[in-house]
Amino acid sequence: MLQSKLFYKTSKEVSVEEKSVNAQLLTRAGFIDKLMAGVYTFLPLGFKVYKKIENIIREEINAVGGQEILMPALHPKEPWETTGRWAAVREMFKTKSQTGGDYGLGWTHEEIVTPLAKKFFNSYKDFPFALYQIQTKFRDELRVKSGLLRGREFAMKDLYSFHTNEKDLDNYYEKVKEAYFKIFNRVGLGQRTYLTFASGGAFSKYSHEFQTVTPAGEDIIYLCDKCKIAVNKEIIGESKESCVQCGNKNLKEEKAIEVGNIFKLKDKFTKAFGYNFKDKDGKEKQVIMGCYGIGLGRVMGAVVEVYHDKDGIIWPPEIAPYNVHLIALKSGDDSLDKKIEKKTFDLYESLQKKGIEVLYDDRQEVSAGVKLKESDLIGIPVRLIISEKTVVKDSAEFKKRDSKDAELVKINKIAKLLNG
Amino acid sequence: MLQSKLFYKTSKEVSVEEKSVNAQLLTRAGFIDKLMAGVYTFLPLGFKVYKKIENIIREEINAVGGQEILMPALHPKEPWETTGRWAAVREMFKTKSQTGGDYGLGWTHEEIVTPLAKKFFNSYKDFPFALYQIQTKFRDELRVKSGLLRGREFAMKDLYSFHTNEKDLDNYYEKVKEAYFKIFNRVGLGQRTYLTFASGGAFSKYSHEFQTVTPAGEDIIYLCDKCKIAVNKEIIGESKESCVQCGNKNLKEEKAIEVGNIFKLKDKFTKAFGYNFKDKDGKEKQVIMGCYGIGLGRVMGAVVEVYHDKDGIIWPPEIAPYNVHLIALKSGDDSLDKKIEKKTFDLYESLQKKGIEVLYDDRQEVSAGVKLKESDLIGIPVRLIISEKTVVKDSAEFKKRDSKDAELVKINKIAKLLNG
Repeated sequence: MLQSKLFYKTSKEVSVEEKSVNAQLLTRAGFIDKLMAGVYTFLPLGFKVYKKIENIIREEINAVGGQEILMPALHPKEPWETTGRWAAVREMFKTKSQTGGDYGLGWTHEEIVTPLAKKFFNSYKDFPFALYQIQTKFRDELRVKSGLLRGREFAMKDLYSFHTNEKDLDNYYEKVKEAYFKIFNRVGLGQRTYLTFASGGAFSKYSHEFQTVTPAGEDIIYLCDKCKIAVNKEIIGESKESCVQCGNKNLKEEKAIEVGNIFKLKDKFTKAFGYNFKDKDGKEKQVIMGCYGIGLGRVMGAVVEVYHDKDGIIWPPEIAPYNVHLIALKSGDDSLDKKIEKKTFDLYESLQKKGIEVLYDDRQEVSAGVKLKESDLIGIPVRLIISEKTVVKDSAEFKKRDSKDAELVKINKIAKLLNG
Repeated sequence: MLQSKLFYKTSKEVSVEEKSVNAQLLTRAGFIDKLMAGVYTFLPLGFKVYKKIENIIREEINAVGGQEILMPALHPKEPWETTGRWAAVREMFKTKSQTGGDYGLGWTHEEIVTPLAKKFFNSYKDFPFALYQIQTKFRDELRVKSGLLRGREFAMKDLYSFHTNEKDLDNYYEKVKEAYFKIFNRVGLGQRTYLTFASGGAFSKYSHEFQTVTPAGEDIIYLCDKCKIAVNKEIIGESKESCVQCGNKNLKEEKAIEVGNIFKLKDKFTKAFGYNFKDKDGKEKQVIMGCYGIGLGRVMGAVVEVYHDKDGIIWPPEIAPYNVHLIALKSGDDSLDKKIEKKTFDLYESLQKKGIEVLYDDRQEVSAGVKLKESDLIGIPVRLIISEKTVVKDSAEFKKRDSKDAELVKINKIAKLLNG
């Protein structure tokens, strides 16, 4: 992409309302734009990151047998009345059709997916199965804050699994746990993300959250160094400040962001909707369920909270909007500038042909200082500069965003260095 | 995909409310499920088709320089009041936040994208540029009908282009026209889709629709055989029943489905939002706009209206849910059946390794008759059968969905036949 054409604009400051680091940096660097409190547009740079996160999630959920579907956002009232959540959940946006119908905007999809599954799969032979979607949800939060971490409109991956017995649910639940760690590793949050025991509500002793440790976190968790798991503060009372797994009392308090959660719903929804299956013995038995969520914007926000410095964002390679930020710097000498421009453009084209995604800062009237500042703010993992100094050596200055050291690399070696 | 695991169920009949062929067939074959009037879930088979249409559109819009973004569905009231469309459009769903705000659900995005563009690009050097999204829209239709052709919730690709002068808008408009024909060719509708002159409203003499000729169409168009264009009935009065391009009076009346539309908005929205640019001469001038829509579900519905027979859907290859439907038929002889199963499974694996998408009907207790009926209903372009008759010749029966003729093909030649 030519930066001169890219729809973005960096800014030094954003509204004082945006207190979180992720909203500040993503807005300043031109990744997102706030439409209103808790509702953001993803601009071209932000959309690229969003898509990469989406694809990572899709790959890992497909790998555990999830079948992708797309359920509506507009829900009829009836299934929500069946579970009692129509009246109970103040955060559900509601709207009335000119034809008289009452609709709600989905903030989760148990009320939709359970009757759907019931309509299609009813024999023990059909089980287990798992359906998921990557879809926009709406939640009328009383207070929105923290940028992409808690909004009124947000994309979620929600997976629902259906089983004939608890052992089968338990097995699948463990598989999804592993898939989640793969996802968090790939987006760059693996090292700081802990499986965290949280309240299980009425149906299980515990549910599990995936909590990413960062000072920006809204949750308090207690880490067990031995088990590499954590306990959410909300249940620390009952576990007496000790690790729920090994009993270790030497827990470390940390702030954390919940980036995912998994939950054994058991018969909570299947009972409400009368979802049974016919077993081998011909008898009708209760289907049981698990549900598994990840918020895409929330992951993006958490990554920025974890990976930034005073100059800007530092994207983990697998979700960076581009692999390389290629920058041409002018010398002031016209004939030399033509050479710089040609070399840079040739490199831009040859890297792209090799499948490397390049943002090329081709802008003519922007100073070197501004180009470098913007590059740090945007945070692409590798920066390549071609300038007077490098072009005479047929080289480019190669610098990783997360390193202070730059090195001169021959232009014809760059692709190999990047792909290696 | 193993058909025994696929989340679908075929049915012989659907609700009498579903009068359209596309809703009937897509529901009966397990591609979509109706949640309520005008609101559908895309099931795994339908979601695959949806994604293929989405990717075709994305590729062709990227090729004309569209930059992909993602704008919210939840809109504040203010920009809609600026254009006067908050009160005027009864089809806009509205909701009230518990915090007091009035929100609308977007049925189009001029009110959002114009202020966004204004915030970022203001110099003549920034122009032209084009932003698009593939996003869910909501429209409170008084009457929903025709399955995926007219719903209350639907996915749209909406592209908006911004220009400094009419000539530039005209040029880009022509480019998008070409991109649209590429899209409709790739989804299989090219032969039957006509550029159609429609009412331009207050801003242009004409807008352009892309109309696909089919008896299921809600619109009436008049085809000019000479120009290969059409005129919408709504403007035939003013054009005196003659071709608006060549004056030909010998027009043919046809029913058609509008699968896309493109529109020169000119200054309609940029004026309302005071969107100017600074020109070379330092003066502020009016930005002008074009907008370009395609409904994804509508394309899918139109394809089914065009491509089906009494037995089911006949998917055009580029948007079929799978490339091949591989079916194992039992012989009744256990040892032969093992051989059939092994051969079929090996072929399944080897085709997939070659990048061919295969739905393998591996179901044990389903009769040959049901398997073949379902295969016709689902409509994958190529059907491969391995049975007693074929396995002894190391072959499979190869049949295209749109042909009556089947041929025996050696198993080791199949991949080449499919990829060639």
